[in-house]
Amino acid sequence: MDLELQQDRTIVRYRRGQVTTITDQVVREQPITVKVNGEEFVTLVCTPEYIEDMTVGFLASEGVIKQYDDIQELWVQPEEGFVHVRTDRWKPQHRQLFTKRYITSCCGTSRQGFVFFNDARTAKVMDTVNVTLSFEDCFRLMDEVQHSAELFQHTGGVHTAALCDPDGIIVARSDIGRHNALDKIYGWCLKQHLSLEGKIIVFSGRISSEILTKVSKIGCEVILSKSAPTGLALELADHLGITTVGFIRGDSCNVYTHSQRILECQDISPDSMIL
Amino acid sequence: MDLELQQDRTIVRYRRGQVTTITDQVVREQPITVKVNGEEFVTLVCTPEYIEDMTVGFLASEGVIKQYDDIQELWVQPEEGFVHVRTDRWKPQHRQLFTKRYITSCCGTSRQGFVFFNDARTAKVMDTVNVTLSFEDCFRLMDEVQHSAELFQHTGGVHTAALCDPDGIIVARSDIGRHNALDKIYGWCLKQHLSLEGKIIVFSGRISSEILTKVSKIGCEVILSKSAPTGLALELADHLGITTVGFIRGDSCNVYTHSQRILECQDISPDSMIL
Repeated sequence: MDLELQQDRTIVRYRRGQVTTITDQVVREQPITVKVNGEEFVTLVCTPEYIEDMTVGFLASEGVIKQYDDIQELWVQPEEGFVHVRTDRWKPQHRQLFTKRYITSCCGTSRQGFVFFNDARTAKVMDTVNVTLSFEDCFRLMDEVQHSAELFQHTGGVHTAALCDPDGIIVARSDIGRHNALDKIYGWCLKQHLSLEGKIIVFSGRISSEILTKVSKIGCEVILSKSAPTGLALELADHLGITTVGFIRGDSCNVYTHSQRILECQDISPDSMIL
Repeated sequence: MDLELQQDRTIVRYRRGQVTTITDQVVREQPITVKVNGEEFVTLVCTPEYIEDMTVGFLASEGVIKQYDDIQELWVQPEEGFVHVRTDRWKPQHRQLFTKRYITSCCGTSRQGFVFFNDARTAKVMDTVNVTLSFEDCFRLMDEVQHSAELFQHTGGVHTAALCDPDGIIVARSDIGRHNALDKIYGWCLKQHLSLEGKIIVFSGRISSEILTKVSKIGCEVILSKSAPTGLALELADHLGITTVGFIRGDSCNVYTHSQRILECQDISPDSMIL
């Protein structure tokens, strides 16, 4: 049994000067924890279909199994987010080869509200409004960041993240790794002892749960992207108080969460954004 | 000191029926191992600039440090790929929170030839030619895969990978996680006991070293992408015998490695592809 792959969200769409509240679909993102012989060893954040194949492919890819028949038993609990594997190929030394991350309940609402354990200790909730942007600001900032990303233009191989305020770019970094670009910005801010009050992250790529969490750790209230957010990222943004604006292209974009920081949305009731 | 961010490569470019061998630039991708108080705990594959900031941001993001002053010493060996950090904030329990991966020398050539330890055990070298494609085949397969990716069309939030032969798609999977899409294909192949001889991976996203390694583990000879490869991915492709075709857009594309599997390139000497 697979879960629904898309989730409905109420969003604010801006297109050619018109603001409308509509129901849109976002892609579901789900943490799946793989337990081998009763022991947790990896959590894969994924689109929740073909979970069995993904687990088998992951185990083969990491060298735990060599063929399908090396698995004696495999069962999936999609709602709970677990895959249980029994295999006699498991060796103690496998344990240290793998990405091992712990998840726990952060917001206490649902499985979808879970975040990684070390995230729960460092994520910050943005409960005040220190910055407001107009839609024109969103388009201008995205434009500036895209123009600044020279390496991206030349080789087409990197993501760009920029720390901005409403006036423009403070610092921009590109990296082949999505998280690295944000880590480079975070490190720079810490070194400069820069206050992050009222700052904005502009990002070239998709807003996944991990990117959203990183924005919260850095301590920014707003993320702008030309790409799409995932459902899990938006649930985290709901809880962490972050304004998410996606699909910024030409003269249109979508506001997914905490629209109170967008000037033209301030008379939209926050309740109307909850399905 | 930062390393060069781009690398020159000799590639075969196909554009509107014309095949030319040119020098092109690809983005550099470099593994950087962070050692805290002498102990290895994470390897970040990154664009090698602002390595210090990235390390500081990563440590703060993961909760090891709270501020810049928590670091007593930090020095970077960019050529060797190490960052050394000394901090009195390090606690034994941090060890198990992190992604811990081991790297080792795989191909014995250079630091750039390194792959992850568990990859070295499972990567396969493709030393025979079991499939050849024309440029027309490349365009047609990319087209088919893009049309099949419905979820991507609707929500713009996922990557698509497909296992193909020259006649078309055998199986296609989409996922918000780049690796998951490939793991879902790999697991399916193992379950079906499918021979991977002469099979091709078509991928919607960038070809990073990790994607290239995954293709080799699955056992495919060719990867086609509409996006760019990284320098490290191409060095691995050189060693692992994989044909890499990137930037497949409209009626043009680039062949980066092992052009012997592309019909129109068979009279190009392999030596002319080495700089």
